[in-house]
Amino acid sequence: MNGARFTGKIAALCGGVGGAKLALGLSHLLEPDQLSIIVNTGDDFEHFGLAISPDIDTVIYTLSGEVNPETGWGRKDETWRFMEALTRLGGETWFNLGDTDLATHAFRTGRLAGGAGLTDVTREIARAMGIKVAILPATDDPIRTVVETDEGALPFQRYFVGRQCQPAVRSLRYENARNTRPTPQVVAALEAPDLAAIVICPSNPFLSVEPILAIPGIRERIEARDVPVIAISPIIAGQSIKGPLGKMMGEFGMASDVASIADHYRGLVDILVVDEADREAVFDGTKKRVTKTLMKTLDDRIALADFVLRTAIDAKGDTK
Amino acid sequence: MNGARFTGKIAALCGGVGGAKLALGLSHLLEPDQLSIIVNTGDDFEHFGLAISPDIDTVIYTLSGEVNPETGWGRKDETWRFMEALTRLGGETWFNLGDTDLATHAFRTGRLAGGAGLTDVTREIARAMGIKVAILPATDDPIRTVVETDEGALPFQRYFVGRQCQPAVRSLRYENARNTRPTPQVVAALEAPDLAAIVICPSNPFLSVEPILAIPGIRERIEARDVPVIAISPIIAGQSIKGPLGKMMGEFGMASDVASIADHYRGLVDILVVDEADREAVFDGTKKRVTKTLMKTLDDRIALADFVLRTAIDAKGDTK
Repeated sequence: MNGARFTGKIAALCGGVGGAKLALGLSHLLEPDQLSIIVNTGDDFEHFGLAISPDIDTVIYTLSGEVNPETGWGRKDETWRFMEALTRLGGETWFNLGDTDLATHAFRTGRLAGGAGLTDVTREIARAMGIKVAILPATDDPIRTVVETDEGALPFQRYFVGRQCQPAVRSLRYENARNTRPTPQVVAALEAPDLAAIVICPSNPFLSVEPILAIPGIRERIEARDVPVIAISPIIAGQSIKGPLGKMMGEFGMASDVASIADHYRGLVDILVVDEADREAVFDGTKKRVTKTLMKTLDDRIALADFVLRTAIDAKGDTK
Repeated sequence: MNGARFTGKIAALCGGVGGAKLALGLSHLLEPDQLSIIVNTGDDFEHFGLAISPDIDTVIYTLSGEVNPETGWGRKDETWRFMEALTRLGGETWFNLGDTDLATHAFRTGRLAGGAGLTDVTREIARAMGIKVAILPATDDPIRTVVETDEGALPFQRYFVGRQCQPAVRSLRYENARNTRPTPQVVAALEAPDLAAIVICPSNPFLSVEPILAIPGIRERIEARDVPVIAISPIIAGQSIKGPLGKMMGEFGMASDVASIADHYRGLVDILVVDEADREAVFDGTKKRVTKTLMKTLDDRIALADFVLRTAIDAKGDTK
């Protein structure tokens, strides 16, 4: 933004690693009260009795500077004494739990058991870790992504971590979605009078964004706004940067390219930001904006966030 | 035993630190199939969603050589990264959970959630840690010791760890006791045809032994046997070696001495083993045997176990 201050608010829909990187960039350019990060909870699960919210934790660790820079998830300077002891016991070790990461899950589990909502607990953890922007679970109600595969139905983490996304995906279900509600904080973020844009981070549309949109009232509220809805393609030159998206699109019979992303989001998204590698991509009904979208460094994250904010300014009054 | 082999089986009722020390001594003198350690579960609780069984863990850690030698509970070479991270989150830190100790609780919680019983899980953990003797939860059903104090009712761990036994105790309840059953393994241990003696370890009679005896069918089975029931006094020269027993006996209006222990166990216990410091103690209706009962070293533990086994041999056919 070249020092010019962006006015108005941003609501960003976000999954894990890739989305968190853009959220971090946005947090560098916006005042805390200008940014609400609405996070997928479809990946949440219980393990050893602990309530684990992988995407929320990735966003918290990323924004607090606590994230493991090598993986993009988990905590830096982590130790693995718990896992070593669990291995000696013959316990289930398919999901890695670092010694300090465990504290986040235990804290959350204890507060939830005491009657707090996921939004409250998330705010407490984020504040304790020095984060000022609002990290908002899309819902406080349980919603669970189930992956229908050629090996049968798998809870999300069993597919994603346990089976390393190996089984072919036939379809996805967002279990209990119809019984969930967006939180008042999410509703307020989407209905803010000074909302300038809604950003869909470069997260997996099917695994990270769709579980948010499946919560009754969220998609409708986004569609009802006359602010630009800007998505950043998680596909670059036919490849997903991380995770099973490219493979999954193939399994769904879709071409793994930005045009398919545009198709998927058609009617919801006004502008799709694609990488320079996809400069020549052609799709109808959605505006295309081109920049470098691969985020390797903090500067990359801030530059992409800056581009998104500029796109929002340019598009103002120009959409819907 | 001077190398002479003890014949027959021993069933030992056991709480945490003090009891575990004698259990360790017994395990050095007996073959694995000769010893069943029936462990108090009244201290069990849930914390951060984790199922914690403090006395079972203390017995397992002690018998596996894994115990922290300075405290008598918890694990040696423990690290505290989880607690440090939890502290930074502002979480509840009144109950210490070491990084490797956490693996035991997580393993247990996961297996219980999967439908296993506490006895099964305990066997799995014990075997993984190289223990061959049977460590048996007194029951697989929930029983919870509640301490009625001058500050109101406190769940056991809140009293014992959270409040460091400070509040004055008025009475104890063993919540849900009437709905519990001894496990088949405990019944088999108490009804074994070749049972040679029942040993009540030097554990707190009210906090560790009574919750076992409160399980319908256990006291009755002990009373029905014609084998010597041998208790080791947890009081030496008017003091409890560890924990709140002496203070608690005062709060109950009892003298804190071995005669009160004899009184408490009258009708159940045939022989009370007391320390040399209590050589002159006088009590009726229960036989007195004197030896060194303070166990500081492994040799002390084996020596006391040896004395108990000799006492059992001497008493054979001499009781009830």
